[in-house]
Amino acid sequence: MGSACAVPCVALDAAQTFDSESKRESDKEKKNANKSKAGEEATTSFASPAGERGRETEDGLCRLKIGIVGFGTFGQFLAKRFVSQGHAVLATSRSDKYLPVAEELGVEYFSNVDDFCEEHPEVVVLCTSILSTERVVQKFPFLRLKRNTLLVDVLSVKEFPKKLLLREVPEEFDILCTHPMFGPDSGKGSWEGLPMMFDKVRMDSENKKNEERCHNFLKIFEHEGCRMIPMSCEEHDRQAASTQFITHTVGRMLGDMALESTQINTKGYESLLTLIENTCNDSFELYYGLFMYNQNATETLEAMERSFDRTKKRLFDQLHEVLREQIFGEGQPAHIREQQQSAGRKLNK
Amino acid sequence: MGSACAVPCVALDAAQTFDSESKRESDKEKKNANKSKAGEEATTSFASPAGERGRETEDGLCRLKIGIVGFGTFGQFLAKRFVSQGHAVLATSRSDKYLPVAEELGVEYFSNVDDFCEEHPEVVVLCTSILSTERVVQKFPFLRLKRNTLLVDVLSVKEFPKKLLLREVPEEFDILCTHPMFGPDSGKGSWEGLPMMFDKVRMDSENKKNEERCHNFLKIFEHEGCRMIPMSCEEHDRQAASTQFITHTVGRMLGDMALESTQINTKGYESLLTLIENTCNDSFELYYGLFMYNQNATETLEAMERSFDRTKKRLFDQLHEVLREQIFGEGQPAHIREQQQSAGRKLNK
Repeated sequence: MGSACAVPCVALDAAQTFDSESKRESDKEKKNANKSKAGEEATTSFASPAGERGRETEDGLCRLKIGIVGFGTFGQFLAKRFVSQGHAVLATSRSDKYLPVAEELGVEYFSNVDDFCEEHPEVVVLCTSILSTERVVQKFPFLRLKRNTLLVDVLSVKEFPKKLLLREVPEEFDILCTHPMFGPDSGKGSWEGLPMMFDKVRMDSENKKNEERCHNFLKIFEHEGCRMIPMSCEEHDRQAASTQFITHTVGRMLGDMALESTQINTKGYESLLTLIENTCNDSFELYYGLFMYNQNATETLEAMERSFDRTKKRLFDQLHEVLREQIFGEGQPAHIREQQQSAGRKLNK
Repeated sequence: MGSACAVPCVALDAAQTFDSESKRESDKEKKNANKSKAGEEATTSFASPAGERGRETEDGLCRLKIGIVGFGTFGQFLAKRFVSQGHAVLATSRSDKYLPVAEELGVEYFSNVDDFCEEHPEVVVLCTSILSTERVVQKFPFLRLKRNTLLVDVLSVKEFPKKLLLREVPEEFDILCTHPMFGPDSGKGSWEGLPMMFDKVRMDSENKKNEERCHNFLKIFEHEGCRMIPMSCEEHDRQAASTQFITHTVGRMLGDMALESTQINTKGYESLLTLIENTCNDSFELYYGLFMYNQNATETLEAMERSFDRTKKRLFDQLHEVLREQIFGEGQPAHIREQQQSAGRKLNK
């Protein structure tokens, strides 16, 4: 794992010249031959508190300073894993109530968003809900951050934040739109094989350092075993409407039925119970967000309704066929005859 | 595994007196002390072709002569496992087309149902579809079987066959209604933990031999690791309507949507794809049978529809709330304002 960084990360305890990074880049091959030594340096530097970025964690990943905006369930869920990988994590949210949980997770907490920005995180991850994101972004003091900051969103819809961020975020910032397609339930244990969609929406391609920072952020998920999926935001929303939104709608519909575990659960029924638990543990706000902020969702909802109606129609058509056979043909089952006789008696009363 | 039979099974090669079975029963304790010897006898007898019942298979299970009526997918599925446990299996069906598959499975096949009955199977398992069962039972030549035969059904609904069999099957016969709640897909490999519901609907309690035969038949499923569930047919149908029928309806509805696997499948979505595959691999006739022959199913279908409508209503209510806030309040998201303006422009055209 010593080679986890795209550009080898070395200790930056001492002052560096302004072009030290591009120099390091050109020295790459020389350094590769000397990799084990660089690894030793990095390990040493990890213990020291100085330096802002580019340090290696014990896993050989590049240590980042990550700021999380919005410290609800999902923000905490990500923060925990970031901290466990040795990244420096800070967070901000409107409310003070998250202070204790932040302390417990080893996250520096700021209830004042200006204080948060002045800490100059290299990466800012928006973990706000779909519904509140626009409001948060419009009020966010981007000017207090370093001009060169990577802004990441993790919303479950993608075209909406892409447009929003391109419109609202100062143009010096890089923008990475992502969707970690799992949460506190499905990603409770290992993240092995879980899908992580991303779209490099705006990236200063002139600056190698920016590419590297983005790479290192994505590396966090890769390192946990996620299935990395580069995909445009538009394509994501198209596919998500007929996967994620359907899944949530089925979960919500069955959740409304208050189904219970019985003695005769089949495998299929148990998978539905798990689905209900996973989707209904999410807030209704998330489900509403998937509907409201994905323009393909209305069509999907209509398609589900049509399919439900067609399924019912097939059942009732067949019922009518049996009844017609009973009226015009022979060989109808005795219990149907009984039903008809009973219905006939009722009609004649 | 030598003690798998409730009453130790011994070799019956020689002629027995009429009361030999009850005698054996009274000798039970004496025999228990001598169990290992009886086990040896049974193993020896298995190799010999004579005798009709009570022989032990290599697993120490009692070898039964099982006749299967209806040799479609499910009949073949059960037959395969019966044969693998060393039971003698014969089958009958209206069509000759099953002859090759029967031969392949080691099942003796009879396209003539009278020939089938004259073989005197000890247990007759009805593996007909829900829709054809009544017709098959009404025409079945029960009188050609031994009077003392165990009749078993494996339909996915239970109150209907219970009433039918109690009405149509000669009263000397025992009746066992069962529902192995799995099939060729979910029970492809091990049956470990799969649910097997049963209801001893009519059992000659005076005759220990009958109890033993029923026990030995159920033992087949127990031996495969099934979760054995004694339950009344009525209770089964009540529970099945809100488990199995819902599962099939969701599978059918989503199956109608022709959903596809995408790059961004979540765990939940993948469980739905599996569900679609499992339910749509079953015939539509089975699904229709679950609906038509379970009186609780109509109510369940209506409950699903109500829950789907309520879920949609919650989405649209929230949408209206946002729009109202936009009309009467402040702080509405910019993209909603845009939508409204655009809608307004269209209206004004």
